[in-house]
Amino acid sequence: MEALDYHAEERSKAEFDVEEMKIVWAGSRHAYEISDRIARLVASDPVFRKDNRTMLSRKDLFKDTLKKAAHAWKRIIELRLSEEEASRMRFFVDQPAFTDLHWGMFIPAIKGQGTEEQQQKWLPVAYKMQIIGCYAQTELGHGSNVQGLETTATFDPQTDEFVIHSPTLTSSKWWPGGLGKASTHAVVYARLITDGQDHGVHGFIVQLRSLDDHLPLPGITVGDIGMKFGSGAYNSMDNGVLRFDHVRIPRDQMLMRVSQVTREGKYMHSDVPRQLVYGTMVYVRQQIVLDASCALSRAVCIATRYSAVRRQFGSQNGGPETQVINYKTQQSRLFPLLASAYAFRFVGEWLNWLYTDVTQRLQANDFSTLSEAHACTAGLKSLTTTATADAIEECRKLCGGHGYLSSSGLPELFAVYVPACTYEGDNIVLLLQVARFLMKTVAQLGSEKKPVGTTAYMGRAEYLMQCHCDVQRAEDWLKPSVIVEAFEARAARMSVACAKSLSKFSNPEEGFAELSADLVEAAVAHCQLIVVSKFIEKLQRDIPGKGVKRQMEILCNVYALSILHKHLGDFVSTGCITPKQGALANEQLRLLYTQVRPNAIALVDAFNYTDHYLSSVLGRYDGNVYAKLYEEAWKDPLNDTVVPDGYHEYIRPILKQQLRTARL
Amino acid sequence: MEALDYHAEERSKAEFDVEEMKIVWAGSRHAYEISDRIARLVASDPVFRKDNRTMLSRKDLFKDTLKKAAHAWKRIIELRLSEEEASRMRFFVDQPAFTDLHWGMFIPAIKGQGTEEQQQKWLPVAYKMQIIGCYAQTELGHGSNVQGLETTATFDPQTDEFVIHSPTLTSSKWWPGGLGKASTHAVVYARLITDGQDHGVHGFIVQLRSLDDHLPLPGITVGDIGMKFGSGAYNSMDNGVLRFDHVRIPRDQMLMRVSQVTREGKYMHSDVPRQLVYGTMVYVRQQIVLDASCALSRAVCIATRYSAVRRQFGSQNGGPETQVINYKTQQSRLFPLLASAYAFRFVGEWLNWLYTDVTQRLQANDFSTLSEAHACTAGLKSLTTTATADAIEECRKLCGGHGYLSSSGLPELFAVYVPACTYEGDNIVLLLQVARFLMKTVAQLGSEKKPVGTTAYMGRAEYLMQCHCDVQRAEDWLKPSVIVEAFEARAARMSVACAKSLSKFSNPEEGFAELSADLVEAAVAHCQLIVVSKFIEKLQRDIPGKGVKRQMEILCNVYALSILHKHLGDFVSTGCITPKQGALANEQLRLLYTQVRPNAIALVDAFNYTDHYLSSVLGRYDGNVYAKLYEEAWKDPLNDTVVPDGYHEYIRPILKQQLRTARL
Repeated sequence: MEALDYHAEERSKAEFDVEEMKIVWAGSRHAYEISDRIARLVASDPVFRKDNRTMLSRKDLFKDTLKKAAHAWKRIIELRLSEEEASRMRFFVDQPAFTDLHWGMFIPAIKGQGTEEQQQKWLPVAYKMQIIGCYAQTELGHGSNVQGLETTATFDPQTDEFVIHSPTLTSSKWWPGGLGKASTHAVVYARLITDGQDHGVHGFIVQLRSLDDHLPLPGITVGDIGMKFGSGAYNSMDNGVLRFDHVRIPRDQMLMRVSQVTREGKYMHSDVPRQLVYGTMVYVRQQIVLDASCALSRAVCIATRYSAVRRQFGSQNGGPETQVINYKTQQSRLFPLLASAYAFRFVGEWLNWLYTDVTQRLQANDFSTLSEAHACTAGLKSLTTTATADAIEECRKLCGGHGYLSSSGLPELFAVYVPACTYEGDNIVLLLQVARFLMKTVAQLGSEKKPVGTTAYMGRAEYLMQCHCDVQRAEDWLKPSVIVEAFEARAARMSVACAKSLSKFSNPEEGFAELSADLVEAAVAHCQLIVVSKFIEKLQRDIPGKGVKRQMEILCNVYALSILHKHLGDFVSTGCITPKQGALANEQLRLLYTQVRPNAIALVDAFNYTDHYLSSVLGRYDGNVYAKLYEEAWKDPLNDTVVPDGYHEYIRPILKQQLRTARL
Repeated sequence: MEALDYHAEERSKAEFDVEEMKIVWAGSRHAYEISDRIARLVASDPVFRKDNRTMLSRKDLFKDTLKKAAHAWKRIIELRLSEEEASRMRFFVDQPAFTDLHWGMFIPAIKGQGTEEQQQKWLPVAYKMQIIGCYAQTELGHGSNVQGLETTATFDPQTDEFVIHSPTLTSSKWWPGGLGKASTHAVVYARLITDGQDHGVHGFIVQLRSLDDHLPLPGITVGDIGMKFGSGAYNSMDNGVLRFDHVRIPRDQMLMRVSQVTREGKYMHSDVPRQLVYGTMVYVRQQIVLDASCALSRAVCIATRYSAVRRQFGSQNGGPETQVINYKTQQSRLFPLLASAYAFRFVGEWLNWLYTDVTQRLQANDFSTLSEAHACTAGLKSLTTTATADAIEECRKLCGGHGYLSSSGLPELFAVYVPACTYEGDNIVLLLQVARFLMKTVAQLGSEKKPVGTTAYMGRAEYLMQCHCDVQRAEDWLKPSVIVEAFEARAARMSVACAKSLSKFSNPEEGFAELSADLVEAAVAHCQLIVVSKFIEKLQRDIPGKGVKRQMEILCNVYALSILHKHLGDFVSTGCITPKQGALANEQLRLLYTQVRPNAIALVDAFNYTDHYLSSVLGRYDGNVYAKLYEEAWKDPLNDTVVPDGYHEYIRPILKQQLRTARL
């Protein structure tokens, strides 16, 4: 018997080898095989079911999360999964949990900031999960500005201990994931004070709860900070609040790789370069960019599949209505997002390479590319997370009314994703960092210091300031060199314009503050150029598989030209292109949509997501949407009874005009 | 004792009379007084508390909603509230409920589409709520395209009845609010069939549940469609699914004001103009525009107040950090939204006038302004709801991390608001209707039919196609005539350009489909012009109160110039303004932000929202944010115990390395 597949006809239309595209998407055959195997493993395990998640109360949801975390850990041990496989398993379980912070922040913090000795002491127990750790940095009154943290760690030379204390309400640790209920330990960031002197913020390993009965240790107040956006979503995480009342820890629990406090209470630095922290930041942010491509591709997969199922208007002679994916308005909103998913995937892959490169250079004491790498990852983190958050909501709207149902999967995906815009650096603050770097780069033009890496194009600023785009026909916009030059010219001109405006201020900091909205726009232009360039670079390599490269070229052009259309004001008002050329780009874009159309379903199939991972009735692989929506509805607890609880107290008295006497 | 007010200093900075602005916002002193009194009444009544709403399970939330609806109805009766007061009470109770549909859709449908006789039969029982009604139009497989509905109402001349039937799964009624659990009756839209002939979709009054025990009547399957976006939010509503298995209703339950079926089964039309339905549509949509200004102003109020409390960076010599509202990046995102709230309020007010005007003309059989009024309300519904949904999420991001907490009020506000983009006409479909009207208007230029109302400017198309903006200095952008002409020229040129492109297609419908993305942009330009024009018109009237008019002028300019900046590509590439003039507009915008800054808190105070209605710790009137956030956190059920439920089963076995033997 054939399996039901409403999308079979769509799939048969694809003009490329989907299996090969799956490997391109995964990054390598090895990565594909691991992902594929672990995804199926998770999908087939009933403990990991998540279709009822949005109906659970907070307590039940949290308990369900603890259960899944324990079960995953059990399976990881039983199956002797590698670190890579274990991480994929947590990924496909797809429920935010304390383990994310234990593995993703607590252990890396010790690895990055702990001495050899500290690592030997703490890492083995952490790897075995004999302790559970989290990362306690932000406070109730302090987020982006780490230097503003108020928690103190005062050295007491008499006992050789630090006294950790929360001096004010606003110094309460607030937000750390896993802190509220699960963690036994935390890396706590606090102002180091020795002999009355404040040395700024440092990290300390602090035990929070007893390993015997999980009760908070004396002096520690800890709890959950309450419900967050959405049902299900990030409410599976115990983001926590934590206050210290003069809690004492041994001196050797300060993370001392970079700075130390001696037995005598003397504060000193080791010869380990402080820049090492930037390496970690590059790592964390490249992960965030890859996560963005995952979240975005997931939303796009749901919206694309449902757009092929859903029909509206255009029925001829009583025949079926038109699939909404055939409408240009739908295509012009959906296909740029599909292209963005691929674009973010490839720029994430490149960032992964950049991380390796930076790490190797750091080990060789070469700091020359560090600030460029830092600016570039900051900018890409901001660009991709903002675009992804907006895109998920756009995909929801592209599903019409049904996207509003929890069973569409999109509300939860949005709610769970949006914090990416504010964590690990607020997106606007990050863009201002990029802008600051760009202004420095412009100021140094003509000096001996040549711009490197993603800012290398600035070295040709003189040319880019006066070059003319030579597009004359729509198809001229398909040339990579034409696209890159337009994006380079736009980015360079916006940066230079900002620099010129800044120079009119006698106080540069005042000027920077006053012009910050313009600076943010220049930073965005620079980051979009990076994404476009890296996509084009990817295409210059050998890519096997029938038609695969061709599809990627189309997507690359869709990405670039849709950005150009959206930011037409930048391109035209800086004189990089003429209005006529802008119109030609738009014309070409329409033609490209027509080329994407027959491949759309196959292009989202290439993400290789299981129905379990997608968790969306609208995005089902087989397209059997309506029967399943109908089926899902009846599972709501409100449908347990035909006459609702509350009828006798509140509905009947209204209908029977007996409200005056009713006790409400 | 003085009440705590962290915003006192901000309030003292205001340069205008806040009390007078409250009246401008409310629309009149009468409206202000009613709103103010009813809002306080609701806020002080413990039954209406809603701070725990996001923590309730679906069943408890629904029961809470029934309780509030019954209590509100009881109070309405006890206090003998007028219709206007009762409607304000439902508004301030602020929890979507079946009553919204009963009063807002069921009763108006009978009033609009029922004969005199039908109104006399059904309205009195509906007004007393002896029956509860809803509006059952959309189906599982059919949304925007009403003509595609599948439910049938077949006349049986033998029994003088209609047989209501759901022939397919996709014909199941799906989404109607209040249908799932509360309603006893519905206006059901179905294809009328007499003697084998299909007459298209008509409305029928159908009883769904017994008035004795609330059980569904024979042949009726009815239930709730399940969880929707967010916690709390719209989950208080029982959006329903409904299937008919040959359900019989008397012939006189077809709504027969416009069309009738006789005893013999003959289908005929009365002389009541069919256009009457458009009058109702204008009414519903002007209400949606006013709702948009409410939701937007609420989000802006929260974000503005918290931006004055929250401090980040910029501490000098250990003093307090800078209030984030002082950053230009914050201002350039927040103040255009503040200005939009006022702009939407005033355009909503104008739509209210338009509705009266259209109604009067309809009664005099004057249909000359109807299609323009219809296009204009469709476009404004689309523009304001899209902008508001985006703005609520932007306001959430403007609150940094804490905006992600349910206690900020913003997640629920977003989740409850977003369906406005897809209900009562999908926003893109509506813009295409506007575009169609614009293309017709362009095609008729030069003919005898002169463009009227909001398209009157098209009559000057010839001039607008070649006029030049004469802005030379930034302050020239403050002149209303300059702004209006730039917006008119942009809208006219975009429409004319679309019309030209369309004329190249031999099949106009194909051309319309192919160019639909461009047409949508032209429609947006037209709608933004309307909002700007109506704001400027409002300012031409007498506005009492110290400094009130001045503030409105500033906001009007902020609205217009921020739109101009956002859509710079349109203005520059159509040659309406030069790049230099665009830069001057941006410069002026920055200066305007400086003028808004000292008045920001007072401008949101003017909305006169109680803390109960705002339901946001971040938006508290007194600004006492951090102490209250801390207090709220402990109310989460997860904090009932220090050691979480699930510790013994799932955490301890991990820590103690006893997972292998644990039963999970």
